[in-house]
Amino acid sequence: MEQHPPSDFTRLRRAPQRGAHDMATIYAILDAAKLCHIGHIIDGRPVVLPTFHWRHENRVYWHGSSASRMVRANVAGGEVCLTVTLLDAWVLARSAFHHSANYRSVLCFGRPSLVEDADEKLAAMKGFVDRLFPGRWDTLRPPKAQEIKATAILSLPLTEASAKIRVGPPVDDIEDQSWPVWGGMLPVHLAADPPVADAYVVPGLEPPPAPV
Amino acid sequence: MEQHPPSDFTRLRRAPQRGAHDMATIYAILDAAKLCHIGHIIDGRPVVLPTFHWRHENRVYWHGSSASRMVRANVAGGEVCLTVTLLDAWVLARSAFHHSANYRSVLCFGRPSLVEDADEKLAAMKGFVDRLFPGRWDTLRPPKAQEIKATAILSLPLTEASAKIRVGPPVDDIEDQSWPVWGGMLPVHLAADPPVADAYVVPGLEPPPAPV
Repeated sequence: MEQHPPSDFTRLRRAPQRGAHDMATIYAILDAAKLCHIGHIIDGRPVVLPTFHWRHENRVYWHGSSASRMVRANVAGGEVCLTVTLLDAWVLARSAFHHSANYRSVLCFGRPSLVEDADEKLAAMKGFVDRLFPGRWDTLRPPKAQEIKATAILSLPLTEASAKIRVGPPVDDIEDQSWPVWGGMLPVHLAADPPVADAYVVPGLEPPPAPV
Repeated sequence: MEQHPPSDFTRLRRAPQRGAHDMATIYAILDAAKLCHIGHIIDGRPVVLPTFHWRHENRVYWHGSSASRMVRANVAGGEVCLTVTLLDAWVLARSAFHHSANYRSVLCFGRPSLVEDADEKLAAMKGFVDRLFPGRWDTLRPPKAQEIKATAILSLPLTEASAKIRVGPPVDDIEDQSWPVWGGMLPVHLAADPPVADAYVVPGLEPPPAPV
């Protein structure tokens, strides 16, 4: 697994004890998260858009409409910052100042490139679907040439990435530990609700599990 | 409730039928979300950092360390894009191309300002804690002057904001509706797990509900 030293952008400044640069940690967080937020600079202004990402080896992928301003900005060589954040718990201390959250986040910097090769593009699309719903791709109506053309796939090498993680209980000032208010963690997780079939589902077909 | 016409940045280009500019919708999504991702431009590069936000009237607030590069970039007059995204469901169609997600998201653009007035800053901090855990502020060990000083509170007027929402089942091509694969929605939500008290909780104290 390739290791990259921290750059000026991925060196952790705030709470560096929470940081990690090892790729196993970065991969695990990118794989656990489905939703990311990608920052672009468009007409000189920051624009942060949500999308879904997936990872294959040392690259992170996402898709967009070939006609979108985001894709056009990326194709023009613009830099991005792709950030994922998983909230694990609220952390309640005895003082407002020591309240915190347990989370896992990754920041990835760089210039994305467009996946242009037809086979590689189709393989990436299959990877996207099957990563969320294993085996689903082969059960779907096959993609049409126009659908493939209308979908842009972008990828970013994970050469400038860092992770930040907080775990554990609150860290109160020692003299506050006896303050008479509850302190600890309120864990949270993304949970699946019962599936809702649409009007056309043939009886006997079952939904895949939600990727939570 | 103030209304602002779409700017060149908040006009919705992709899937405009999913867009909304009315402030009631924007406020409701900002209030339902706790986590946001803020895009900054630092040394000419986009940097997207996760943090928590809260809204009061027509402004959105967040906090940071007074010493952080994010706060310094903001104080220097840098623009930001604050984005929140709530994932509501995976949307499974019969073709890969029509897979989607149900979500609610808001983008807010502008130049944040630092809350400098001491009373306003304290009120904002109280607002942050009490929004997550109603009534908790008054039960905490009161803040120290140094803690208030070390915490920067930033705010952004909601003058250039837009919402985007997708709801409902997949929209398959008509000729695909009979394709023999399950189609519909897999709803998800953020759920609370049992609280975990730390080592110092006095017996009899109860945790507040997690803000999910």
